[in-house]
Amino acid sequence: MISGHTARRALLGLAGAALLLASPLRAEEASGVSTFTLDNGLQVVVIPDHRAPVVTNMIWYKVGGADEKPGKSGIAHFLEHLMFKGTGKHPAGEFSAKVAEIGGNENAFTTQDYTAYYQQVAPDSLPMMMEFEADRMRGLVLTDAVIGPERDVIIEERRMRVDNDPGAVLSEELQATLYQNHPYRIPVIGWLHEMKTLDRQDAVSFYESYYAPNNAVLVVAGDVTADHVRALAEQTFGKVPRGPDLPPRVRPQEPEQNTSRTVTLTDPRVSVPSLRKAWVVPSYNDAPKGEAEALDLLSEILGGGIRSRLYQELVVKSGAAASAGAYYDGGGLDDGSFGIYASPRGDTKLADIEAAADAELARIASDGVTEDELERAKNRFVRSMIFARDDQSDMARIYGSTLTTGGTVEDIENWPDRIRAVTADAVKAAAARYLDQSRSVTGYLLPAKEDRS
Amino acid sequence: MISGHTARRALLGLAGAALLLASPLRAEEASGVSTFTLDNGLQVVVIPDHRAPVVTNMIWYKVGGADEKPGKSGIAHFLEHLMFKGTGKHPAGEFSAKVAEIGGNENAFTTQDYTAYYQQVAPDSLPMMMEFEADRMRGLVLTDAVIGPERDVIIEERRMRVDNDPGAVLSEELQATLYQNHPYRIPVIGWLHEMKTLDRQDAVSFYESYYAPNNAVLVVAGDVTADHVRALAEQTFGKVPRGPDLPPRVRPQEPEQNTSRTVTLTDPRVSVPSLRKAWVVPSYNDAPKGEAEALDLLSEILGGGIRSRLYQELVVKSGAAASAGAYYDGGGLDDGSFGIYASPRGDTKLADIEAAADAELARIASDGVTEDELERAKNRFVRSMIFARDDQSDMARIYGSTLTTGGTVEDIENWPDRIRAVTADAVKAAAARYLDQSRSVTGYLLPAKEDRS
Repeated sequence: MISGHTARRALLGLAGAALLLASPLRAEEASGVSTFTLDNGLQVVVIPDHRAPVVTNMIWYKVGGADEKPGKSGIAHFLEHLMFKGTGKHPAGEFSAKVAEIGGNENAFTTQDYTAYYQQVAPDSLPMMMEFEADRMRGLVLTDAVIGPERDVIIEERRMRVDNDPGAVLSEELQATLYQNHPYRIPVIGWLHEMKTLDRQDAVSFYESYYAPNNAVLVVAGDVTADHVRALAEQTFGKVPRGPDLPPRVRPQEPEQNTSRTVTLTDPRVSVPSLRKAWVVPSYNDAPKGEAEALDLLSEILGGGIRSRLYQELVVKSGAAASAGAYYDGGGLDDGSFGIYASPRGDTKLADIEAAADAELARIASDGVTEDELERAKNRFVRSMIFARDDQSDMARIYGSTLTTGGTVEDIENWPDRIRAVTADAVKAAAARYLDQSRSVTGYLLPAKEDRS
Repeated sequence: MISGHTARRALLGLAGAALLLASPLRAEEASGVSTFTLDNGLQVVVIPDHRAPVVTNMIWYKVGGADEKPGKSGIAHFLEHLMFKGTGKHPAGEFSAKVAEIGGNENAFTTQDYTAYYQQVAPDSLPMMMEFEADRMRGLVLTDAVIGPERDVIIEERRMRVDNDPGAVLSEELQATLYQNHPYRIPVIGWLHEMKTLDRQDAVSFYESYYAPNNAVLVVAGDVTADHVRALAEQTFGKVPRGPDLPPRVRPQEPEQNTSRTVTLTDPRVSVPSLRKAWVVPSYNDAPKGEAEALDLLSEILGGGIRSRLYQELVVKSGAAASAGAYYDGGGLDDGSFGIYASPRGDTKLADIEAAADAELARIASDGVTEDELERAKNRFVRSMIFARDDQSDMARIYGSTLTTGGTVEDIENWPDRIRAVTADAVKAAAARYLDQSRSVTGYLLPAKEDRS
């Protein structure tokens, strides 16, 4: 499974809920979240949640698509698949069969920055889950007999999810245009021609380099105590030897961008045209203090839901658009992206929708946002956080994704305060600085013969 | 000095001249060119030319910008500069001073695929040139005292040649958009933010990996014999120990491209707008048999000089354009590019010029070329070849650039026959296959406030 960063924005939005309810206790005490590191370098995070007899066991590796060697695109995601193929101790399928047998569920996902595996089970099955997970951390058996058929599976996955979907093809080439140098340019699933060449040696080399306790974070959320998890972790993951020391995760960064770009896909399979406009912007990990939070609120005010400016102006008032919104993808290790999207209603020309959206961009950059808008955006974030604790796997994801992209437990816990501290001036400044048409990349998805002019 | 591939197209055009005049002798005998390899792996090519007492000594390394590690852009060109900084035997400046003292000239250049150094001197100075050149092949002294100031020089070179020239900035970002995966995306001079970080260790590592006799080609053209050059090469380069074995030069290749893209730079420094439209196409090294030759002739017929279709239609007949032409950059190790360019005359809109150029592209793809046009294009190539032998450094460049991008001496010698064998159908097929608007990348260079619509 492949996930973008976008999920994390919402998840981070949820992250602070516990804290808001818990003031004036110290954040960490309030959330009850604890973290410690085993001797072999594995960081462990425990998120107690005793409302139901359920536990989520998630192991996060600090490696994703953007860490792949040039020419080896798709290997991170390929390895995610191969992790289900059996070890010397447990043949292929045994782990998954066991999860099903005990009524649990499991999955895994790969992004540009991390790869994660999880099971949700009853607490008394946690030791077994940890044993299986620790076993496949270093014990995977990668033979050609396993590699060949699974490569066919990921190639088929690409065909289904990208090549058969014009919107996905456009997204891929828009991303390749948006980033001129950074590997976020390259799709996590991989370029088809490179996926076809991935072999056993590539998989072994990637696995041996990156799958190790000192490159992982274990997040356990649910009906457990920190002491219990620590004991279990010592008995299972604690026995996995430390892997090789890894160099810092330094990827090629973007140069200064000076041009506006467009990417157009015209395809008979498209029935409704649409456009998307994107910019490279800092992420939570590399932004100047407060700027990522301002970008989050900017995206909320500009295009987060039906009360946002874009939706109100383009969809509700003028009726020209069928949809319109904005997003901030700031959950990566390196520079993320900010974008808007819209789709015309009926016979409205895409160019008219774009002009209307551009006018909103210009307006927010020149006039800023009102205190009232800002307060309501902050409150929407806060309200959504109230529900955070209701989903222990969401909580586990927030911690795992943050800790594998340069963040800390403290970053998560003080995030609501940082959101509250954003001023209207900071939102305006972020809009003025980043939503610059002369550096934008616009994607057009057009039905065959559609004229966007 | 940085050179694109484009030069090689013209040079290759010149390459076969000797052969055409020499039939029915065997090509190699006719040209008198000989090649041999020293025990340490250095390939040597000798091109006798006894008309004047001059000799060109060129050493070519099979490394260029596209071989750089991610994040280290500019290191190949930086090393070209550092090669003038002195060795343990000869302090900085001594080699250049000696060349000047004997009335010779020298230079060096770096492309995506190779780096070359040459001196043109009287034949009796050849041994000394070879001694100097062999000495700096492995004997360079790279200290921080040398690195820092020279890094300032290349940064200043970038500022002058790229950042101060809107056309160069646009070319850079167009190239970064044209190639979605291949390192030809990255400028040879380097991205500024990466150039700033290049340090002694980067230079040493690059030098030690790539500067070695088994990764080089020595080309000597002029008033010399093969036996004499062989003896001199043995005495000088022959004493340089073989370097580490290098893996094959496999770079990440392009995925299938599915979108049309535009890249626009609006800049107050631009006085005359212009456009360029480019496609990724095969190179001589990776094209199916005959296709690179067809692309060469296509570019000649479409836009090679004042008798070409684009020039005749846009400049001469309609008078709408001030300039118009086409190029095929097929001299690289990997996929090259095909492009057209045009600039409006007076108040003509850029969009009108583009429409007129697009019409010519559509016409040549649907109707092909006439036998007469094809014959004249071949003859223009042939006529330009007549002059090839007149410039021994051009001859040296042809051999050096071909031998460092996957070609052979034989490829050069039978090139005229391959050009002659191209049919009108092959040219039409190349146009229809590659000049596809839905996969093109168009660059617009606009004066501030210019409206291209």
